[in-house]
Amino acid sequence: MGDFEAIGKQFVQFYYSTFDTNRSALSSLYRDESMLTFETDKIAGVAAIVEKLTNLPFQKVEHKTDSVDAQPADAEGGILVLVTGALLTEGQERPMSFVQTFHLKQAGGSYFVFNDIFRLVYPAA
Amino acid sequence: MGDFEAIGKQFVQFYYSTFDTNRSALSSLYRDESMLTFETDKIAGVAAIVEKLTNLPFQKVEHKTDSVDAQPADAEGGILVLVTGALLTEGQERPMSFVQTFHLKQAGGSYFVFNDIFRLVYPAA
Repeated sequence: MGDFEAIGKQFVQFYYSTFDTNRSALSSLYRDESMLTFETDKIAGVAAIVEKLTNLPFQKVEHKTDSVDAQPADAEGGILVLVTGALLTEGQERPMSFVQTFHLKQAGGSYFVFNDIFRLVYPAA
Repeated sequence: MGDFEAIGKQFVQFYYSTFDTNRSALSSLYRDESMLTFETDKIAGVAAIVEKLTNLPFQKVEHKTDSVDAQPADAEGGILVLVTGALLTEGQERPMSFVQTFHLKQAGGSYFVFNDIFRLVYPAA
C-alpha cells in the first residue's frame, strides 16, 4: 500500500470521527484557499466552510464509510480521495448514501483540504 | 458559471457519450501518467486503462448523470469533477448507481484525465 493510501484512509477516519463528535474542530483541516461544494452550495475559505458545516440542520450525525480510494494527485504530495458511505442523522430512521471527494494538499509537512465536494446519492430508478 | 464548471460539464458529457458509443476512443482522454481506480482494480497508463475499459464484461452500456460538480484543482488550470449517476448494462433490468471523480490536468491547451476513480454505490441499509 502506497503512503498516499495510508494517509488517505487516516485522513478519512479522522475527518468523519471529528465531524461526528466535534464538528467545529474541522477548522484545523481547511484553509483560506479551501473550497467546499455541499450539494448545490459552493463555499470558500475555512471560516465560511466551518460555519456551513456547524450549521447543518442536525446536531447528531453518524458517518459510515463503505469505500475509500486514494491516488497521488500531483508531484507535490497531493492526494485525491473518493469516499462512498452512508450517514444517519438524528430523527431519521434510515441512513442515506453519500459520496465525498477530497483533494488533500501538502503544506509545511501536513495536509489540508483544498477541494471538497459532497453529494447525497439517491437510489437509481 | 466559471470556466471550470463549463469545461467539467462538457468533459463529462463527452466522456460518457464516448464510453457508451465508441469506448476505445477514450484513449484520447488519457496519457501515460494517468491513473484509474475501477472498483478495487488499480490501473496506470493509457494503454492499460483503455484495455480495462474496453474489456469490461458488457458490450452495451448507458450512463445517465444526476449531478456534475467541478472545482479548480490547482493554479495550472486543473479541474476536479465529481459525478453521480446511474448506468444500465445489457441484460440488466435495473440501473445501478455510480460515482466517479476525475482530476483533469491541462497540457498544451487541452485537458487529459490524470486521476479517475470509479465506484458503484449500493443503497444504504
